Amino acid sequence: VADPAAAPAGATPAAANLAAATLAGDRRALARLLTRIENGAPEAEAALAALFAHTGRAHLVGITGPPGTGKSSLVSALARVYRQRQASVAIVAVDPSSPFTGGAILGDRIRMRDLAGDPGIFIRSMASRGSLGGLARATADVVRALDAAGFDKILIETVGAGQSEVDIARAALTTVVVEAPGLGDDVQAIKAGLLEVADVLAVNKADLPGAEAAVRALRASLDLASPAARRWAPGDGHHGPPGHAGTPAPPGGAAAAGWAVPIVSTVATEGRGADDLAAALDRHRAYLAATGGLAQRERERLSHELEARLRDQLLEDLTRRLGAEALAGAVERLLAREIDPASMARALAAQLNA
Amino acid sequence: VADPAAAPAGATPAAANLAAATLAGDRRALARLLTRIENGAPEAEAALAALFAHTGRAHLVGITGPPGTGKSSLVSALARVYRQRQASVAIVAVDPSSPFTGGAILGDRIRMRDLAGDPGIFIRSMASRGSLGGLARATADVVRALDAAGFDKILIETVGAGQSEVDIARAALTTVVVEAPGLGDDVQAIKAGLLEVADVLAVNKADLPGAEAAVRALRASLDLASPAARRWAPGDGHHGPPGHAGTPAPPGGAAAAGWAVPIVSTVATEGRGADDLAAALDRHRAYLAATGGLAQRERERLSHELEARLRDQLLEDLTRRLGAEALAGAVERLLAREIDPASMARALAAQLNA
Repeated sequence: VADPAAAPAGATPAAANLAAATLAGDRRALARLLTRIENGAPEAEAALAALFAHTGRAHLVGITGPPGTGKSSLVSALARVYRQRQASVAIVAVDPSSPFTGGAILGDRIRMRDLAGDPGIFIRSMASRGSLGGLARATADVVRALDAAGFDKILIETVGAGQSEVDIARAALTTVVVEAPGLGDDVQAIKAGLLEVADVLAVNKADLPGAEAAVRALRASLDLASPAARRWAPGDGHHGPPGHAGTPAPPGGAAAAGWAVPIVSTVATEGRGADDLAAALDRHRAYLAATGGLAQRERERLSHELEARLRDQLLEDLTRRLGAEALAGAVERLLAREIDPASMARALAAQLNA
Repeated sequence: VADPAAAPAGATPAAANLAAATLAGDRRALARLLTRIENGAPEAEAALAALFAHTGRAHLVGITGPPGTGKSSLVSALARVYRQRQASVAIVAVDPSSPFTGGAILGDRIRMRDLAGDPGIFIRSMASRGSLGGLARATADVVRALDAAGFDKILIETVGAGQSEVDIARAALTTVVVEAPGLGDDVQAIKAGLLEVADVLAVNKADLPGAEAAVRALRASLDLASPAARRWAPGDGHHGPPGHAGTPAPPGGAAAAGWAVPIVSTVATEGRGADDLAAALDRHRAYLAATGGLAQRERERLSHELEARLRDQLLEDLTRRLGAEALAGAVERLLAREIDPASMARALAAQLNA
């Protein structure tokens, strides 16, 4: 696909310098690059194109879960464990629900108290800037820049647990779903959908009443939700290991054959269980590496990203071809109920495809 | 835009019958149509095209808010008030976080106890089926079918409060954000982003300690978040009414000039405050009608929908043109780090645009 259109618009010396400085470990250049990514600046795209070849090395860990489970504290505790092991850590706190960065700022304040001043750690908050797709894409690009900048661990934390947050956390290699005892019925309902994306479950606030019951209930839910995973679980004895390189890997989460989702109890505010959590994350990465799952997850992630970018690019191309006025006129015809939206979309798209 | 591509694929006699029966008030035909919409059946699209001219009459009310605020109970209480006034009510319970419909089913069970058997009420649960965009689109189509079927009030309830839920609720004419006292810091953080989409705020569980403080805090947050709205608020005395037909209306929510977001206290489980909430919703609709906001919101909604459909349609067209194998090959090149995703998207899109 050698095409003149493939040359990034912002391929300037400034972009090349930004990429080179980021690769060289210049944190201020990295911060500038991330700001340009968030603002959608053309040189950000060019810099990312230059950095792409240097990505794919970091362990990307997504952390999601319902509000009130103490995700931020757990991310801080995990970061401290990694720092004790001399691993460099980047934390990306994403809040799709807030254009105000309210939650992200809150989390930062807590972390800043004990993590600030350590050059081996880098914290970035991202809030919604209009479209959800825009935030997911910007997050992916920010993570990519941090990956190229050489961080060993990249922790992607989402504030809530809606589908959007789950999608963002799921774009990681390993997804941690954080739960806590006693969150009420509404939250219990939300949990159901979360379980299936979990590679590792953390029951935080494990010192509260009901923690053991929560662990038991989660274990039962996991067994119920993915009998296949249990059937193939190590130690079962009836079946051999299911996955090896070349075999299409399972879609991930609790349904991943061969990987029994561990449940780790933590008290993040005291750092308890953070070591166990780090160990579980290491085991998951090793498991993926041994079974071909690393490449498979990367393939899925890139496929998903390419699709999202194609949607945007095609709409941009169509808007340029037809003009914004033609699209506004189309909306007026919909408003007058002259034609329905699906038929209108088909007709307009056909003009690009002609 | 008269184009052969505009003929819906599923324009069969079956689709025409489904549309006609839905318009005639046949509830079983409506239920069948909604199932076909959720399954993406071709005849659903044809039926929706036929129904589109009959839409735009219902009052679409979105209800969102953090978990634990009692949204389901509030929706039930509101539905009972509407039924006492002889208005027909459709409830669409959307759970983007759960492919299992866990939350939606929970909500239904509560409602079923006292709303079942009433022919003037219709309840539908929708859960995620893979993509988030798919759910938002299916919800819009389900709401449209219910609108054409003649329901006076359509209550669109979301389980959580992530950006996806907010987007879904915001697609309504009037958006209610539900809060409750004492939900903890994490939830407080989520609230910040919700405030700006609220046309009406409901503080549910108003019999709990802290309810009055919650109302005061919300009022202060509203004043802080949208000084413009406060400046233009009725009763202020310094400024005339800002909006009238023909003036571009504000984007909605707390920022809507001239509309002072009311805060209604409710105890949904006892039905307390539901009358006040219904009255606030009526006032908001009347306000929009008087200021040209009705058409403006409908225009925004249709514009957003057309854009989303165009993205899908264009990607579908490109995939058909290039073939799935070419796209898979493109992903392999990304995986090998030969080219970055943005450049690849630009190059592929150029082939459709050629």
